[in-house]
Amino acid sequence: MSQLPQTPLTRVRRAAKRADYDRETVHAILDEAHACHIAFSVDGQPHCIPTAHWRVDDVLYIHGSNGSRLLRELAKGIPASVCVTLVDGLVMARSAFSHSMNYRSVVLYGQFLPVEDEAEAWASLEAFMEHLAPGRWKEVRQPSPQEMAATTLLALPIEQAVAKVRSGPPVDDEADLDWPVWAGVWPLETRLGTPQPHQVETAV
Amino acid sequence: MSQLPQTPLTRVRRAAKRADYDRETVHAILDEAHACHIAFSVDGQPHCIPTAHWRVDDVLYIHGSNGSRLLRELAKGIPASVCVTLVDGLVMARSAFSHSMNYRSVVLYGQFLPVEDEAEAWASLEAFMEHLAPGRWKEVRQPSPQEMAATTLLALPIEQAVAKVRSGPPVDDEADLDWPVWAGVWPLETRLGTPQPHQVETAV
Repeated sequence: MSQLPQTPLTRVRRAAKRADYDRETVHAILDEAHACHIAFSVDGQPHCIPTAHWRVDDVLYIHGSNGSRLLRELAKGIPASVCVTLVDGLVMARSAFSHSMNYRSVVLYGQFLPVEDEAEAWASLEAFMEHLAPGRWKEVRQPSPQEMAATTLLALPIEQAVAKVRSGPPVDDEADLDWPVWAGVWPLETRLGTPQPHQVETAV
Repeated sequence: MSQLPQTPLTRVRRAAKRADYDRETVHAILDEAHACHIAFSVDGQPHCIPTAHWRVDDVLYIHGSNGSRLLRELAKGIPASVCVTLVDGLVMARSAFSHSMNYRSVVLYGQFLPVEDEAEAWASLEAFMEHLAPGRWKEVRQPSPQEMAATTLLALPIEQAVAKVRSGPPVDDEADLDWPVWAGVWPLETRLGTPQPHQVETAV
């Protein structure tokens, strides 16, 4: 499996055994999450802003209105950090101290670049839709030139990235294993609920 | 309902109709999410790091090992931004452009302060456990003095905060409403799965 390089930014220091530089692991986490969080600073003030993201090969994309401050700032090529987190469960140990969470997260570093090429932008948006709802791109009303012009698309190469994963049961101290309390994992599951069709009211 | 102040940092500029400064809304979103993302900068490099959080009244808490870089940096009182996001559904419109997500997010600004007071730290940790599993604090092996000493607890007053919420069906252009494609919302639901008890293997 192809490994991402460990760089000064992505080398995990705490709980290093949970770090995973495998591209497949990183990509799978990015693909499963619907939103990422982006850290960037303006005049020394950090911001943490959520937005939808998607991936095509080794590139992470975000998009939005040309008027978005997030996109306008990032388009300048300032340093950014992106994080995606999936919480998989609550780890209930015998000791309060050993409680934990099962999760899969990715932290990425780099600079976003505006996607100026129309064909890349179109292919990327199509890939986004097809990732969420295969086959749908051909069914919906596709973007007009005006809509494309109103949209900023930014790309971040997935090069400086690391996943961190915790899974499995609680890890209690040996001395606590007999403590008379239920211990184990409460899994958290995210699933698609019943689709809610949008009925348009028509004038009678 | 008590409103949070709109400050230069928390005033929402894009899609301002989705901004909500009501404390109850902000608190409910913070309480439902299991993890937050924290943006902070070290030597001009922004980082976006996930961690568990919980709330007691108007204070957001995070905790971890004394060795955590996140906690050590934040404990210096540097500016931070915290974001919590709940993705509630995928909004499938008739036009590609009008696709959206239903979500509830909170962005907070401020500086974390170390919790030095032992009684506050203890009460806060108890509140964290009781929020996740009411009644459990009294059942588990409570923290030893060594464990308390190894744990850093940081507090962020919830003063500069704003929620942003999108809900409801797609909003398509009038001209697209007849487009022959299914439109509506695909709800995303997070639920507790079947608890997985931890069986300790005993030597025979």
